Parts: sequence; C-alpha cells; structure tokens
Amino acid sequence: MPISILKADPAKPEGYSHLLKKAKSDLSVATEKVIPILRSVEKEGDKALFEFTKKFDSIELSSLTIDPRSVRTNVPKDIQEAFLTAKKNIETFHKAQLRDSWSVNVDGNKLGVKYTPIPSLAVYAPGGTALYPSSVLMGIIPAKIAGVKEIQLVTPPQKGGLPDILVWLAQILEIDRIVTVGGAQGIAAVAYGTESVPKSEFVVGPGNSYVAAAKSYLAGVGLIGIDSPAGPSEVGILADETANPMWIACDMLSQAEHGEDSSAILMTTSQSLADAVSVELEKAFVERPKRLKMKQHAIYENSCILVFPKMDDCIHFSNLLAPEHLEIQTADPYKVFEGIEHAGSVFLGPYSPVAMGDYISGTNHILPTAGGSRIYSSLGVDTFLKRVTYQEVTKESLNRLYPHVKLMSELEGLDEEHGTSVKVRYEEKKH
Amino acid sequence: MPISILKADPAKPEGYSHLLKKAKSDLSVATEKVIPILRSVEKEGDKALFEFTKKFDSIELSSLTIDPRSVRTNVPKDIQEAFLTAKKNIETFHKAQLRDSWSVNVDGNKLGVKYTPIPSLAVYAPGGTALYPSSVLMGIIPAKIAGVKEIQLVTPPQKGGLPDILVWLAQILEIDRIVTVGGAQGIAAVAYGTESVPKSEFVVGPGNSYVAAAKSYLAGVGLIGIDSPAGPSEVGILADETANPMWIACDMLSQAEHGEDSSAILMTTSQSLADAVSVELEKAFVERPKRLKMKQHAIYENSCILVFPKMDDCIHFSNLLAPEHLEIQTADPYKVFEGIEHAGSVFLGPYSPVAMGDYISGTNHILPTAGGSRIYSSLGVDTFLKRVTYQEVTKESLNRLYPHVKLMSELEGLDEEHGTSVKVRYEEKKH
Repeated sequence: MPISILKADPAKPEGYSHLLKKAKSDLSVATEKVIPILRSVEKEGDKALFEFTKKFDSIELSSLTIDPRSVRTNVPKDIQEAFLTAKKNIETFHKAQLRDSWSVNVDGNKLGVKYTPIPSLAVYAPGGTALYPSSVLMGIIPAKIAGVKEIQLVTPPQKGGLPDILVWLAQILEIDRIVTVGGAQGIAAVAYGTESVPKSEFVVGPGNSYVAAAKSYLAGVGLIGIDSPAGPSEVGILADETANPMWIACDMLSQAEHGEDSSAILMTTSQSLADAVSVELEKAFVERPKRLKMKQHAIYENSCILVFPKMDDCIHFSNLLAPEHLEIQTADPYKVFEGIEHAGSVFLGPYSPVAMGDYISGTNHILPTAGGSRIYSSLGVDTFLKRVTYQEVTKESLNRLYPHVKLMSELEGLDEEHGTSVKVRYEEKKH
Repeated sequence: MPISILKADPAKPEGYSHLLKKAKSDLSVATEKVIPILRSVEKEGDKALFEFTKKFDSIELSSLTIDPRSVRTNVPKDIQEAFLTAKKNIETFHKAQLRDSWSVNVDGNKLGVKYTPIPSLAVYAPGGTALYPSSVLMGIIPAKIAGVKEIQLVTPPQKGGLPDILVWLAQILEIDRIVTVGGAQGIAAVAYGTESVPKSEFVVGPGNSYVAAAKSYLAGVGLIGIDSPAGPSEVGILADETANPMWIACDMLSQAEHGEDSSAILMTTSQSLADAVSVELEKAFVERPKRLKMKQHAIYENSCILVFPKMDDCIHFSNLLAPEHLEIQTADPYKVFEGIEHAGSVFLGPYSPVAMGDYISGTNHILPTAGGSRIYSSLGVDTFLKRVTYQEVTKESLNRLYPHVKLMSELEGLDEEHGTSVKVRYEEKKH
C-alpha cells in the first residue's frame, strides 16, 4: 500500500481538489467542558487552581508559581550549547523584524506610527510527551525582543518537579515566573489573574483541545488576545527532477512523525521523482520503524504525490494549499519562490529541510496550519507590537480642509458636534 | 447635573478605577439567532439570501450583486472633492506603511521575510442611518494598497436603490462588486460563497450585533479572518492649563454624538480647566440641542473629568484606559506622547481634533475600542499583509549545526525522522 501518486490535470482539478479540504478542529465539545472550569477559577482564584490540579494532575501543589531563579538546574553542557546556539540565531532573525517608529508629511500635517509592545504575555508549554523545549524559545524570544515587560510561562506540574531543561530555559530567557498549572485551569489562571498569578492580556502557545478551547473562548469574550489555533503539522514540497528522492522522503516522514493526522504533499513535474520518493518511503518504513503505524497512517491516508504538467501548476496548487511549511527543491528555487504567495515558512534548496527551521536556523516554528497562511502569519515580533498612529494637524491645514470636513460631516449627520469641533478652530482665525 | 469631576489621588486608585471597567458586548443572544441564518445560507445559497432579504428588509431583490461600473451616479462636485481629498490623504499615509521584503544573514544562512497580501476581502458597510461613507474609504484603501486582489463591498439593500455616494465610492475605489445583502445573511454570503457571491477569506467593517455575532462565530470556526470587534466610541484627552476648554468640550461632545454609550474622559492637572470644560459642556447643550438626550447620557453617565496631581499620573491612567482616540492638548504634546504606550490613534496639539482624523487627515478611523489598544492596532496595510518567512541553508552551515540538531531532536523524541532529515544531508559530505 504505497503512498498515492496522482497525475494531476489542471483542467480537471476535481481529481485532486479534495486535498484542499482541511479538517478544522471542532472545539465545541471541549468548550462545554472548560466553561465551568473557567468560571470556577474566575470566582475562586487560587483555591480552584489547587483543586483542579489535584483532580486532573493528581498533584497536591504547595505553591502555584515557581521563581526559576530560585531553582538549581543541571543541564548537560552540550545540550546547553545547542539551545544557546538556537537562541542566538532566533534572536538575530527576530531582531531584524523590529521597526523604527516613523512619520510622514501628509497634506501639510505630520502623521506617524509609533510601535509599542503589548503589556503582558503568558506562554503555554504543554507537559509530558508534548513538551517541546524548542517551542519555549519560539514563543518567548519574539516577545522579549518586542519589549513585552511581563512574561510568564505556564505549564502543567509534574510529579518529581518540572524538567530541568524547562526551568533552565526560563532562567536564560529571564522569565520571572513559571505558573505550574496546566490545561484550561492554567489558561484561566493567567487570563483572569488570581491571588498568586498576575493577569496576562495575551496568551500564546500550543496545547491540547482543552487548552485550545479555553484560549478561544476567552479571546471570543474579549478577555485576552491569542495566536492562531495550532492544528496538525503539514508540509508541502515543490520539486523537479533535480531533487534527491531520499531526502524528500525523509522530509515527508519528518512531518508524519508529529502525528497520524499530519500530512505531506509533494507537488512535482517529474513522474520518475514521484516513483522514486514512493520507493524511498517504503524503504524508510523498514529502516526506521519507530512510531511506524502513526507515520504510515499520515503518509498513506493524509499525504499524496501530485504530478503536474508544469511547475506553474505546482505553484498554483501550492498557493491554494497554503501549507504550514513549504520546501522548494528545484534547479532554481528562488525562481519558483517568486510565485509563492501563501505559505507559513519556506525552505529553499537542497540543504534546507524543515527540521533546520524547527530547531536552529532562526525562523519561528509557530506557524499557521490548515491553510491559515492564506490570511495569517507565523509568530514574530509583529505579533507582540501594536501600531499607535498619531497626527499633529497645523492651523493652516485645518483651515484649508475645514470646508471638506463640513460637507462630509453633514452627509453623515454628524455636523452638529464633529463638524463644530473643527469649525471652532477654523473660526479662530477670524478673531 | 453637570459632568462629574473627580479629584484623582494616585494613592487611592479605587476612587476612579471603575472607569477602567469597559462593558464588553455580550454577543451570546445574537449568536443564537444568527446560527440558523448562517446554516441556511451555507446550505441553500442564493435562495436563502433572497428569502432573508424579503423577510428582514422587505425587499424583493432581482439580483444579489451590483457591478458599480454599470450604475449612473450623481454626486455633487463639492462632495466629490471632499472625498477625493480624503482618499488622497488616506492613500499617502497608508502607502507609507508598505514594507519591502528583506533578508539577513544568520549564522551563515539567508533568512528573510516576504510580505504578501491576503487573497480576498469583504468590507461590510451598514445601511440606513448607520451608513458612514468615510468608513468605506477606511476599510478599502489599506487593502488596495496591500495588494488584495478580490475585494467586494457588502451592504444592505435599500428601497429606491443604494445611495449614490456609496456606489460612486465603489467606482472610484475600483470595486468590481457590491453584494446587496445585509445583516448576518450578508456576512454568511461572503464567508461561504454562493452561486452569485464569491467567497471572501477575510471580512472587516462595523455592523449591528447580528453582523458582529456572525463575523465572530465564523471566525471562531476558522472560516474567515476578521478585524477586532467595534464597540462604543471613546476619547481620552490629556490636557493642562494651556488648553482651550471650549474646544475640549466640543471634542468630548463629538464622541458623545455617536451614541449614549460613548464616553469621553478628560485627564488634567488643572482644576480650573476642569471647571471651565464643565461650564462649556452645559453651554453647548443649550446652543446645540440636536440629539440632546443621547449626548447628555454619554456625558453624564459614561464620561468624567479626572484632576490628577501630575501629568505623569494622567499618562499612567491613560495607558490603563487605552482609549480608542487620545488627544494631547498640553504645552508640549510630544513630551507627553513619549509616555503613551496604549492608544488607538493619538491627536497632538490644539488643531488636531479627532474629527480631522475621522474624515480627512489620512489616518485610519477603524480603531480598537474598549481598551483593546493595549493589545490591538488600528486597521492598516499590515491588517491585510502576511509575513512569509523563508530560509536557504548552506551545506557548510548544516554540517556545522547538525550536532546541535541531533541533540535537540533526541531530547524531544523526534530524532528518528527530524534528526534523520538533517543527518542524511550531513552525511553526504563523507561520500
């Protein structure tokens, strides 16, 4: 049962357009379950957090927060070096995203934009097997660079204490507080604030369906801002006959390794590459059998190789797919990239597997999934900055523009006060 | 019953912190009502749109869309000139917001950001007395400048046809299609797409609670992106003894004119200014009695003058308030502005009443309300642009960084495939 290879005819898109139907997570069941939890935390604060932690995590906490500076950690030197290298590269790329405030002269007036950071942020980090220390770097570094002053890390408590790597990361990222409450109750803690947990106005980071439902519900009622919801991981690959089929198979499996609902779509002009990749996938299943069932489900059920007549057809379909990750492994990847409009993060050339960006190159790996990159961006410094617009109008300009404002405010039925507020300044010149 | 003037003591913030409690609109009732409408439009398309329009607007449409180029309009020359001046200024300020794509060298690799527009947009414009033609400019111009290709205007039908000004604006803004369906059914039409209405992936613009509920629900299920919800209009004013009390009163009434739930908060260091503004407000109520009850409700029930000991106290409170509009009328407004972190749009100096930005100066008047400017920005070119990040990793850099990736992927339990996808490239050098 090899991966399905489709001959894609752009004149008959119905043959492959089912691949564009992305499953959106239905959070309604989880939302019903989390609402009572949120209400309890809102009403009872710390007391509710202690109780939910006992109930859901079977842990009796003595304190809800940890000051990472007060904890001794023991992280091997080589692991430290790896994460410090990643941190440095992520910082360099995200610092380049900072923008200076600016102003322009528009019709005689000074108009401008001042960029300011959001005031507070909570970054959620899942516990157990879903703990990805690299995601902690990805969530916190852009906020630090944007200048967010109050940042707390939220993560489920663990028997025997938090993993050293997590606490050590909080230390090197200079986070003052780890809130050791998981799930919906952890999100509620930072959204409402309690006796021992300060309120955060923005919450980011991946989590299970309860975490996602809590974030989405609290954002919907206007209590917090959130990042776009994280769905199954996906990669699109644009490749021609120059690509290495074994490397492409590895990259597809790298997404499959995230879960059985992950997907990898190879779009190519080369039937022989398609066949070779299929062979390499089968070989890999034999050679690397860890999580085999999961990977096979992802590859056989959710993934596909599409063979198009022309690279332009591949590009067109890729823009409709708007994959979270997009690799371009062609003779001239920049030429193909010119046509790309919608993708979360793009990996050009043979030596840019997604894993390089996942871990170390410096781009952010928190990306819009399920076709979300048609309208959303990856996490970045901009996520945590706002544009405060401003203007200083001169008397000369006000006098010149007043007749227009008079007419427009009359047309909108707002001349009595809007119109008057300009008129009184206009009339000043007559005195 | 004059406006309330409070002596604000920063040591006792409980005396005035109730002003920070912003009423968030509860959309739950409206949401229940709109869900069946959305379902009908999703299922029955055009048929449902015709039926809902007959039911809610008492209008039997012969077509659901209008091509504005096919309509003759008659807009007086002076009105045309006013709107063309506004258009030019809005375009100049928003063009200045465009950013060039860029790249940097990070640890030997090329990392960059390419800015691309969202593919499609619907701008909703309310009908009847809530029709503000100026808002059509504010919604569409930034999207045009961002490069959004498919833009449609959605607005309720009107007996006797759409107002000339609306169709004329669609003409000069080069909009191909006006969808003449209002309310939740109008939002559903563009979100799902029907036989005669193309689907839009992003929807912006103000509307009543049904429009807001439909947008919010459809965004929650991941079908569309939306702007932040529009609440009651509000202005904060920072002023010292140099300010003109009559002008300030006019500016406060200019917000009050929007509705009885609007608010105006004057923060000042001058008791005599506070008293004088109160007197001017009473005089204005006598001199300009239009919408008197509404304006008095807004001023007496929702507005306030706070007299602080120092301007720094005013600034601190203003940042907590995070007003939609903020005027600074002090001896040195830029000095005060330095301390401002959270506000939608700021108006500096005596000749910059909010109405100048509402209509003509060039800044956008679609702004975050209800304290939203602590985490959100005004509508702008950035609203419609995404950051597509990209990277090209070199072989040298991959070889150097692989040992780090190996350790990190092992730590996260993803070495089998993530690690391997880098390893196969690393090992290439040995052959």
